[in-house]
Amino acid sequence: MQLSRKADYALRAVAYIAQVKKGDLASIGRIAKARAIPREFLAKILKELTRAGILVSYQGVTGGYRLARAAKEISFLEVIEAMEGPVRVNLCVDGRHCECSNEKSCEIRPFFVKQQEQISRALERQNFGSYTNGSR
Amino acid sequence: MQLSRKADYALRAVAYIAQVKKGDLASIGRIAKARAIPREFLAKILKELTRAGILVSYQGVTGGYRLARAAKEISFLEVIEAMEGPVRVNLCVDGRHCECSNEKSCEIRPFFVKQQEQISRALERQNFGSYTNGSR
Repeated sequence: MQLSRKADYALRAVAYIAQVKKGDLASIGRIAKARAIPREFLAKILKELTRAGILVSYQGVTGGYRLARAAKEISFLEVIEAMEGPVRVNLCVDGRHCECSNEKSCEIRPFFVKQQEQISRALERQNFGSYTNGSR
Repeated sequence: MQLSRKADYALRAVAYIAQVKKGDLASIGRIAKARAIPREFLAKILKELTRAGILVSYQGVTGGYRLARAAKEISFLEVIEAMEGPVRVNLCVDGRHCECSNEKSCEIRPFFVKQQEQISRALERQNFGSYTNGSR
């Protein structure tokens, strides 16, 4: 019941990029060093974040990454789901995977459905707006 | 960021055993059938729950399992941690694993520390007392 290392790194990378001065780009090397993220793993993560429409990548020697949108429009949930797929605190909260024959009298599911709502709401509300240097 | 299948099965098994009439034992076969849990996996889980002091096991043809304590004294947290070890929504919430050099200005950790407190509290409060048949 733990966030993957990959999603944790993704959050840290996006938070770092959110702090970069408007117009500037963050290079892989800079992010890796600043946030102690293994460089090759970071490259893979940044590629996936770009594919997910969270970052924009610029090639070349002076290339790097910037946010694809305003920092306050990127939620923790979006970044985590780009890495791990849908956040589900328990498989059963997604009705399709509720395997028991006793769904109606299930003792476990209602509790996790409630936890799911709470964590999803918290992750959706938490965005990177507060991490900017005020220029976004 | 999902509860393991093993911990989910453990919760379901304990909830089932909590419903068994006082003095009766729940056999592996009965629990497996009632909660659609693969029998061999369940046997392993029940052994671990016994080792953790959550269940008591009785050997023999008429053997089976009962709770080691009153159902309301067994929390979801205890059962999950017996299966997965300490619940940590993110590795960094445990100070020893906070790897960044920027702990003081970290953008991510305070959010997860808060989530950790909330989920731990919810899992600690949730016990199996409401699942008994009133005889405990």
